[in-house]
This record gives sequence, structure tokens and C-alpha cells, in this order.
Amino acid sequence: MSAAVCFTHFLCAQSADVLKVRNYFENNQHSILNEFVSFLSIPNVTNDSANIRRNADFIMNAMNTRGIQNVQLLYPTTTKAVPSVYGEALIPGAAQTIIFYAHYDGQPVIPSQWAKGLAPFTPVLTKESLEKGGSIINFPPSSTPYDLQNRIYARGASDDKAGVMAILNAYDAIVKSGMKPTVNIKFFFEGEEEAGSDHLFEILQTNTALLQSDLWIICDGPVHQSGLKQVVFGVRGDTHVEVTVYGSKRPLHSGHYGNWAPSPAMMLAKLLASMKDDNGRVTIKGFYDDVIPLTAKEKKALELVPPVDEQMQKELGFAKREMKDFNLAGAINLPSLNINGMQSGGVGKNASNVITTSATAKIDLRLVAGNDWKKQQQKVITHIQAQGYFITYKEPTDEERAKYPKIAKIELSGGYNAQKTSMNLPIAQKVIAAVQSTTKEQVVLMPTLGGSLPLFVFEKYLNAKTITVPIANHDNNQHAENENIRLLNFRNGIETFAALMMMK
Amino acid sequence: MSAAVCFTHFLCAQSADVLKVRNYFENNQHSILNEFVSFLSIPNVTNDSANIRRNADFIMNAMNTRGIQNVQLLYPTTTKAVPSVYGEALIPGAAQTIIFYAHYDGQPVIPSQWAKGLAPFTPVLTKESLEKGGSIINFPPSSTPYDLQNRIYARGASDDKAGVMAILNAYDAIVKSGMKPTVNIKFFFEGEEEAGSDHLFEILQTNTALLQSDLWIICDGPVHQSGLKQVVFGVRGDTHVEVTVYGSKRPLHSGHYGNWAPSPAMMLAKLLASMKDDNGRVTIKGFYDDVIPLTAKEKKALELVPPVDEQMQKELGFAKREMKDFNLAGAINLPSLNINGMQSGGVGKNASNVITTSATAKIDLRLVAGNDWKKQQQKVITHIQAQGYFITYKEPTDEERAKYPKIAKIELSGGYNAQKTSMNLPIAQKVIAAVQSTTKEQVVLMPTLGGSLPLFVFEKYLNAKTITVPIANHDNNQHAENENIRLLNFRNGIETFAALMMMK
Repeated sequence: MSAAVCFTHFLCAQSADVLKVRNYFENNQHSILNEFVSFLSIPNVTNDSANIRRNADFIMNAMNTRGIQNVQLLYPTTTKAVPSVYGEALIPGAAQTIIFYAHYDGQPVIPSQWAKGLAPFTPVLTKESLEKGGSIINFPPSSTPYDLQNRIYARGASDDKAGVMAILNAYDAIVKSGMKPTVNIKFFFEGEEEAGSDHLFEILQTNTALLQSDLWIICDGPVHQSGLKQVVFGVRGDTHVEVTVYGSKRPLHSGHYGNWAPSPAMMLAKLLASMKDDNGRVTIKGFYDDVIPLTAKEKKALELVPPVDEQMQKELGFAKREMKDFNLAGAINLPSLNINGMQSGGVGKNASNVITTSATAKIDLRLVAGNDWKKQQQKVITHIQAQGYFITYKEPTDEERAKYPKIAKIELSGGYNAQKTSMNLPIAQKVIAAVQSTTKEQVVLMPTLGGSLPLFVFEKYLNAKTITVPIANHDNNQHAENENIRLLNFRNGIETFAALMMMK
Repeated sequence: MSAAVCFTHFLCAQSADVLKVRNYFENNQHSILNEFVSFLSIPNVTNDSANIRRNADFIMNAMNTRGIQNVQLLYPTTTKAVPSVYGEALIPGAAQTIIFYAHYDGQPVIPSQWAKGLAPFTPVLTKESLEKGGSIINFPPSSTPYDLQNRIYARGASDDKAGVMAILNAYDAIVKSGMKPTVNIKFFFEGEEEAGSDHLFEILQTNTALLQSDLWIICDGPVHQSGLKQVVFGVRGDTHVEVTVYGSKRPLHSGHYGNWAPSPAMMLAKLLASMKDDNGRVTIKGFYDDVIPLTAKEKKALELVPPVDEQMQKELGFAKREMKDFNLAGAINLPSLNINGMQSGGVGKNASNVITTSATAKIDLRLVAGNDWKKQQQKVITHIQAQGYFITYKEPTDEERAKYPKIAKIELSGGYNAQKTSMNLPIAQKVIAAVQSTTKEQVVLMPTLGGSLPLFVFEKYLNAKTITVPIANHDNNQHAENENIRLLNFRNGIETFAALMMMK
């Protein structure tokens, strides 16, 4: 036990049970990782229903092989395209039931953006991360153990097929090591998370009895940037506003009309620039209203989070500039506005000497406890209107073009609110203790994850509590090209879930 | 003569000579347009040297067929890829020599962006413009005259193969109608204009004797938006600055880092927004300095330009908003800054929930007499620097990323200055009179075209004067998809050049 890094009130040592799980991994690493690679080889882009089904079949087979009971697909009432995979291991005498959640679908891919030698659904092994100069290496023969600093690159490697396989292997490790879970375990793997979980509520609604539990453990997202494990008590909500502004109906020669015709690119630049000040604070009226302040316990937990701002700035390659009054841990406890994408015409070799006809930006809104996603969208729309724009929700008509000097078309996505579970609940304390039992280092306790999951549906339709326990390395490139998982994180994840399945 | 539309001091009637040319066109319209269509069927994307050469061969053949003398290709000294086509018709006793210029290369094409049924190098005939609801129709049999309101759609139809063919047919019409040019005629057709005419000066430099003249008549660009013919005494210069600003080295999850990490899209929006005020006036320091004020005669000419702002706003589909103190004719007599393209990440179905790594804008700078293109570029760079940016001309290094909160990479294009010929020159007066002799309506006299041509090279290397006489309809979609020429403009162009070849 190292006093320097272990300053919480929990036991700072790895339990004997955890060491058995580690031993199991070491003895079975090739079969475990072979199965993982096969899983990653099945394309899983969300909404690709044929391949989504192949992934679901793969998971069902992996569950049956492990002796998990009552394995089945749970369908939404309105579509067969996005089933969740369910299974259970009920333990005689267990007083509590925990549902372990992960999702098996992945973000869309643009293969051309992936690094040389990589394809999203052809998993490869690398020494170190490619961004840090790592290179692609061969998978070792079965006689040679893996170097756990190696990484597997593929879509879904971290987000979130690692979660699915870590949960299943944790159960396997417990049983095959002659141990027993202390709680009833239910497995729930979603196939539509990256598309916004639009049908998840239908599955919950029609399976309330099957999905009874004392807690959902959500496996998604990365561990803390310091490398420490973390337990996260909430997630931010998320919604989007796409805005398109208009100029001429046809592209104009930038010489003949270059001072005179409206420039949608410049109009959009001015509109976006009006939304944040130079410190990154959102200037939209009332944007930070509705936020429920952090509790004393949450503030205390945040104070204990190791500061990683400098490390992250260095790793990500920038000098700090925005949000000068906020550190990273504090910043994610506020609602945010971010431009996911912005486009008008082409640049580089795709540029033409024209004035473009329109300009579009996709705006991402993250929400914290207290925010309502529809209200947050409306604040943005009201702001655009206050900049003199006529708001429409379809392509402007000729009459509208003739009448309004500034026209903005708004496309609203769906969305959902943030969700937070109290750190004071007895089962929350059990979760913290279980995760702490797997590591000699401090476990970080976060009031919320920066990322978003539609956890509100569990509360709304099942009246259930959720706590998130992520396992991926923080530099996993989730949602982007070159997604990867570090093998050590994958193994540590198996240990974490095993400890949770055996929580005291 | 209509007093309402003819208020210049020139003769407002069509001369007998012009009517003979019109008669010739009417009797030979099928062979003239068949040849034009064959010409348009040869792909002419600038830099496509194999096809560029096929176009040059076609022109040489067309010149030889017409009895034009000394037909040859003029090559730059450093490349064989972009020859100009030369020929001459020297008239015994003629005191002056006019060179007629057009270019035969065209802008790049993106076939998928062209309207249904169109391909850039498969010319089709349409009734009216497609944008105004016109439809594709069959070419008429040789027994049926063309409706001159019809249009031919193809890359180069207006910019600038129409110029080449109008000039050659003007000469043909004079000779075959039993008339005689009053000036020595030299023909000069460039093959590299749309790529920036980078090698034109080499051709001029090595052929100073061959290219002696009293005036170059440049045929490029459109007639006035009012539909009136115009004589243009200058062109704007042009250059570009591409700017890229940087955030994290890898794309970041917009949830986990959404309030904290720098957003290149927002940085670029703020940077671009700082370059213009809400009236479209450029706010870059000294941007309007160096401009040589218009002469009294130029101001008078501008006052006589029929206002087309309202007509153009209606046609282009917008309510007026920028540059409230400037009308279209006035605006093009100022330097401009326009965003040709702007991009960071994707929008619509290409959007991801990320914070992007960089954002890029291509900025187009148009110049008027007095501006120096390198100085104008520098004003933009100095402005970016004044917004707190570290300026680099290559990808930023890790050291630079760690040191500077705001980094802008600058990519500078080539460029050239504006060019203007005095309206007071005797030969300028002859040109105006010749063009006026072809129409009952007022000829518009413009100090400058909004667009750009590297006319400075004629002055620099040949000490030559240039006057531009465009013929295309203003709604020809030059540089964009669906380029077209209205047949009436093509025929009128033949008449205009014939009058110029017979100037008094």
C-alpha cells in the first residue's frame, strides 16, 4: 500500500479474489483475446441492422458458451432492427441484483481517415499507441504472453465492445476460478447507443419484471486521464442543433459579386462567434441557468480528483486558452456548446473561386443535472433569432428569401437529459469499495462523466439507479478514427467487473 | 433609336455592316453551331494537357479552314503543356493592329453536381435556362432555324470557348459577306487562363515582335446583368490566403472535453468574423488603402450604368443585407475579401460528436487599381497576427503547440494585380463606337470587371493596352456546374467582334 497515492478512506490493496481473476486472465489470455478480435471483426456501425444482428448473435453465442441462463434478444415494440441482448446468472441466496450494461454498436467510420495499415473492422495489434510513435506488430503465438501495453485498434475496441467482453469474461473468471458471485447478475447489451438509444425505452417498458434490479452498472467511456480507475455517478445529457444560413440560390463568381452578395460563410462565422466569449464561456442568454449546484460531497470528490490539465494539454498538443477559470474536472460539470462540424464550400484543392450558397454548422449541446434538453435547444434558437435571423425548419421559400435578409434553417436532433445518482446510497458505497478492492491506487469518484448516455430512461421506465464504471484508456479515440483499447485496461476491466459481481 | 434606352453620345443604331454579319449568321447558323458543339465536346479542364492539346488542334484547324495566316502554337519556354494558338489576318493598308484574345481551357468539373441529364462535355440544347424551368430539347434539323433564346449547356460554353468561336466566326462573316477588316487582326487563344496563366508571360516575352499591336481586345466574362452590351476597361486582380487554425492533435470526444479543449471551428469563426463588419466592409487595417480613386469620367460612366441590384437580388434569391452603402456597380470598384470555402469536421450525416483538430478557410482577395497583391495578402496576415495568432507556414511543431495558445498556418497562393486602361485613349473611343454600332441600346462602360484576368502581363511584357469586350449572358454559371451560353449572346458576340474588326 502506497500512502502517496492512496488517500481515500477505502482499503487500498488488491483482494485475493481479484488476484485469482488476474491469474485466470493470464492463463487464458490468448483465447480471451482471440474471441475479442473475432468480435471486433464484425462491422458494428450503428443503424447497419444486418451487421448489428450478426454482433448480437455473436454475443448470444458467447453467453451460452459461458453457461449464462435465459439468453435472448429483447426487441423494441416498433422495430426488429436494434435488439438488446439479455442473459442472467441468478445466485441462490443472493439478496441483491445488479444489471451490467454495455453496448455493442459503434460510431460511423470514414475508413480513409484511419492511419496507414488500419481498417476499422480488421483489428490489428500495436506496440504503444500509434499517436505516440507505436507501430503495428504481429499477434503473438499462443506460447508467448501479450505485452499488456500493446493496443488493439478497431472500431468498437474501446467503445464499447471492450465493455461487453470484459463483463462476460469477468463472470467466466469467477466461475472458472471456483468462486461465486455475491449478487444476482443480469446482462444487458444494447445495439443502438451510438444512434441515440431511441428505442431503448420500449425494451425497458415491455420488460419491467425481467429487468428488476437494485442497480445498473454502466460500462462505457474511459477511466480517468490520470490512469486511475473511476466510478462515475452521472452522465451529461446531449442534444444537437444544426443550423444552415443562406446566400444566393446559385454559386456566384467571387469576382463579379465579391463585395456585394451575401456570404453565408461569413454570416455563419459571425453567428457562431456570437455564441461564446474569448474565454470559452457561452454567451447565449440563460445558458447556465437551471443548473443544479454540486453537493458538498460532490465538491469534495472533485477536489480529490488528481489534476491532469497540464498532462492533457501536453498530450493533446495545445497550450491552454479557453475557459481560463475552469479546470477539466470542473468544466464537465457545466453545460457546454461545441461545434462538431462547420462547412461551406471546399478548402484546399476542393476550393473554387465562388461565393457559396449556404453554410452549415452542427452544434453539440451537453447538459448537466437541472438542464432540460428541449429548453437548451430553444435557448440556441432564441439566440439565433436575436441576431436578426428569420427561423425556419425547412428550405426557405422564394418568398422568405425575398423578405428576410438573414435566414437560418434549424434541424433539431433528439436528445436526453443528464442523470445523476447520489453518492450517499448504501449500494453506491458498496460499488466504490468493490472497485477500490482491485487497485492499490486511489479510485477517482466523479459526480458526472463528460460524455453522455441516456441513463434517464432507466430511472423513467424502471425507477432504477445507475452508476458508471468505465474501463477504456482515456486516449482511446472513441467516436473518431483510430479507435483503440490498451490491453492492460481491458484486463483491469475484467478484474473490476469481477469485483463488482462479488461485492461485499 | 429609342431615347429611353440610348442616352450616350454615340450613334444608337445598328450599322449596315452589322446587318450583313447578322444575315451571314442566319444563313449559316447550323454549320456555325455544329462546329461550336464539336468544340465543346472536347474536354478542356485546365491542366489536363492531353485534352488541352486536342482543343488547340481543333482551333488551328478552324483557323486554317477560314484562311487565317501564320497559324501556329506558341509555347512557353518552360513547358509544352499549355500552348497558346496564334494566327493573323494582315490587311494591306491597315494602320492599326488589334489582337483578339480568348481562352480555350475551362474550370475543373464535378459532374455529379451538374443537373439531371447534363454532363460537362456532352453539350445539350435547352429551352430557356434550366434554373428558370427550361428543359432539354433536341437540336433542330438543318431546315429549322434555332430559337436564339435557347441555350447550350457545357463546360466552356460561355467561359470561354464562346469567345474563341465568336471571334473566328466574326472574321469569317466579314470575309464571306464581301467586306474587309479595317485593321490588321491577330488571333491569340490561351490554354491556361483558368489555372492562373502562370506561363503566359513566357509566351509574350519570347514573341514580342509577333505580338506587336495597338490594342488587345479581351473576350471573357459576361455582358452587363441588364442584358446590355458592355465595354470594360479593367479587371480586378486576385490572390488567395488559406488559413488553418489548430486545436488538439487528435479528435476529442465532445462530451469528455467539451467545455475545456480549444475548438478550432469556434476559433476560426471568431477570426473570420473579425475581418468584416455587419455591413460587409472589411475591417482589416489599411484594407482599402492604396486604392486609386476613380476618375471623373469613370464616375460618370458608373452613374450611367443601369441599376440591376433589385433584379439580381430577386434572381439570386436574397434580400439585400451586406454593403448597404454600395450598389453592385460600385462594389466591384473596391478590393474585396470573400470566403471561398470553410471547413472543420463534417455536417449533416457526416457529423460526429467530436471536437475537431483543425479548421480551414480559403480567403479570396480581389484587387483594384493601386492594390499590390502581396501587400494585400500581408494585410490579412498582419490582421490574423493582431488577433493573437502565432503565424507559421507549415504544420505546427510540438514545441510551437506547447508555446502558443493560438496558431494559424498560412498558405499563400500566387496572384496578380488589377489592370485598367484609360477611357480617354483615342483607340478606346473607337472601340466604344464600334460596339455601339451593333446595338440600338446603350452600351455600358465599366471601369472594371468584377472578375479577374492577368491582364497586367500584357502591359508588363508587351507594353500593350487591353480592353475587355465580354459576350456571355450574365447567368451563365461560369466556374460552376451547369455552365451555359444563350444563343442570342453568341450571335451578338459575333456581330460585336465583326464591328471591332471593322472599327472606323
